[in-house]
Amino acid sequence: MSRRLLLFAATSCLLSAAVDVHAQERRGGFTPPPVVISPEVAADQTVTFRIYAPKAEEIRLSGDLGNLGDAGNLVQGEQGVWEAKAGPLAPGAYRYHLVVDGVATVDPANPATSESNGNSWSLLIVPGSEFCDVRDVPHGALAEVAYRSETLGRFRRMHVYTPPGYESGEGAFPVLYLLHGAMDSDDSWSTVGRAGVILDNLIADGKAKPMIVVMPHGHTGPFRFGPPGENSFERQMRDFAQDFANDIRPHIERTYRVKTDRGSRALAGLSMGGAQTLDIAIANLKDYGYLGVFSSGVFGIAGGPFTAGGPSWEERNAAVLDDAALKDDLKLVWFATGREDFLLETTRGTVKALEKHGFSVTYDETDGGHTWPIWRDYLRDFAPLLFQDD
Amino acid sequence: MSRRLLLFAATSCLLSAAVDVHAQERRGGFTPPPVVISPEVAADQTVTFRIYAPKAEEIRLSGDLGNLGDAGNLVQGEQGVWEAKAGPLAPGAYRYHLVVDGVATVDPANPATSESNGNSWSLLIVPGSEFCDVRDVPHGALAEVAYRSETLGRFRRMHVYTPPGYESGEGAFPVLYLLHGAMDSDDSWSTVGRAGVILDNLIADGKAKPMIVVMPHGHTGPFRFGPPGENSFERQMRDFAQDFANDIRPHIERTYRVKTDRGSRALAGLSMGGAQTLDIAIANLKDYGYLGVFSSGVFGIAGGPFTAGGPSWEERNAAVLDDAALKDDLKLVWFATGREDFLLETTRGTVKALEKHGFSVTYDETDGGHTWPIWRDYLRDFAPLLFQDD
Repeated sequence: MSRRLLLFAATSCLLSAAVDVHAQERRGGFTPPPVVISPEVAADQTVTFRIYAPKAEEIRLSGDLGNLGDAGNLVQGEQGVWEAKAGPLAPGAYRYHLVVDGVATVDPANPATSESNGNSWSLLIVPGSEFCDVRDVPHGALAEVAYRSETLGRFRRMHVYTPPGYESGEGAFPVLYLLHGAMDSDDSWSTVGRAGVILDNLIADGKAKPMIVVMPHGHTGPFRFGPPGENSFERQMRDFAQDFANDIRPHIERTYRVKTDRGSRALAGLSMGGAQTLDIAIANLKDYGYLGVFSSGVFGIAGGPFTAGGPSWEERNAAVLDDAALKDDLKLVWFATGREDFLLETTRGTVKALEKHGFSVTYDETDGGHTWPIWRDYLRDFAPLLFQDD
Repeated sequence: MSRRLLLFAATSCLLSAAVDVHAQERRGGFTPPPVVISPEVAADQTVTFRIYAPKAEEIRLSGDLGNLGDAGNLVQGEQGVWEAKAGPLAPGAYRYHLVVDGVATVDPANPATSESNGNSWSLLIVPGSEFCDVRDVPHGALAEVAYRSETLGRFRRMHVYTPPGYESGEGAFPVLYLLHGAMDSDDSWSTVGRAGVILDNLIADGKAKPMIVVMPHGHTGPFRFGPPGENSFERQMRDFAQDFANDIRPHIERTYRVKTDRGSRALAGLSMGGAQTLDIAIANLKDYGYLGVFSSGVFGIAGGPFTAGGPSWEERNAAVLDDAALKDDLKLVWFATGREDFLLETTRGTVKALEKHGFSVTYDETDGGHTWPIWRDYLRDFAPLLFQDD
């Protein structure tokens, strides 16, 4: 037996778990499935997606890729391999599924995934961006951390970015708490959001101060949109605010080498995370020097979605909102949103309310909607404004 | 419009990326797809898998779940939801796919994934194990770290476990380098392998010393089994040994607070990683105090798979193998394998060869084959033997 054959014989048994050979065996004889490369990013930033699905009737792309029209429909080629070419796509990161006869699957040939609210997506990186490509600069570490939530009575996961050199044991750092949206998990800011890569680049370029970025999980139970109930949006918002104040922040300040003065603590979030930012920060404004609200605001403030009965947000928080002393060391209140965002009026209404109560708000409206490209841009723009007095 | 309806209207647009509504819209009218819970682990450790796939013809389970027979075939129930019940399954972690008409997909309702060699699996945790359940003990952090491989001319990823309290900046720690198998990636030891959880528990129970566990990526290019070529097994083994010696170990020893004496450095691996362990350690035996080889050995040593021409492994490494002085401070050479392993003779042949050259080898054969449950057990048994003289 030749060495080549020996290699194949020995290793093919390792493959048994990975390749669907049973159906083929039943048809008699083993034909190895074709080798599939997907996704393939070309120099012109078009991306080819491929999947081996000999029995499928319809396959299309879904996810963050935008409206691809017919380009989003995969076409069956030889040997049961389907293919679609999309783009050119702007540099950045994209979550996608291949929807095979109505079943949204991750790309079987792509090991990179991005965890979301209750499911996983394939992750596509399109290079070519100065601020979110992995560059030849010092890199921080991105950790999964289990902390005990006494509020919720169980261990919970968060992601923590520590800046380059943190492992050495030298120095104490300011902290940005960075919250995700309703469709995300604590994994999202560091996969599709590229937070660690963005910080690495900003720090290397001298634009942002070295900082720890804490990315907790904003859902406190199985979360599905729908009518109020045990896991309602309001209930989860309340539980998370408590988990954050009692468990997340104390865990970080007990465990990591962090600065704990107000000027060394920032809180920001996108969409649901922006609403949580306001919830948490207004209740404890003396603790936070910097606030960032991306594509969000106080839900219901402008009569839009999530309008609740009872006293208004302004009425409920009047004591804090009108306390001038609390604003003295508040260094930054930063809002931005896309002009096509479905929460645009919520954002505008919140900025207006804060200004009415004497807050100085930095506010920008940009092109785009309620999507990750905007939030990566916002992190790039927001992080350099933090902790510069340190 | 009621508050309930407002909530639904506002949030349903967020759902558009997540739910495959287009096909339904084309059929006229929107019917929300049923809510699917999967996998669902019952108290008796049976596990129910479910997937919404109204157009599928055949769906079955594949992966680490073993030979399930008919139980591995999902059966279509109401509303296009298919279901299968497996088990009771032993406590531990399992990688699985749902194979829908020949396409191996991750479970769309399960956010947990485990990255492998070139693809991703859904991850199922079955609780009930004292050593690999997440328990109410202090937890370490599991980080993704990018390091510069000068050997390969690019940034590469590794996973690094730091023990509870490392973040404080106190203390220096011994290091276990832990290598994965050919079907895995640097993610595998900490997902399906549960390495961080196992270490947390062993450390909390006073059985293992606090240590850093470094889990690098053992493939150096796209790796597929098949004939030798640019990305052949031999070429990748050679490249990885160089990457390890020149880049991985130096990065860790430069970046982390580690002890760098021989007695504070261990190297172990499973399958391909076991062969790499011997490759790397024999070439630099003076640097390693502890070696662990799980379900592996020197490929080809017993005339089995991967037999190469030219001088034998013993001939090539005679100078090191017969150097008595190098064995003085070698504290542990630990081998274990399953009796049903296809590499059993490779392991036995390697142990025999090492003993012939005067090595004292701790060797055990256990029940089972070439699978993750065994490797988790081996880590549980091996880690407590390390660094006890420190």
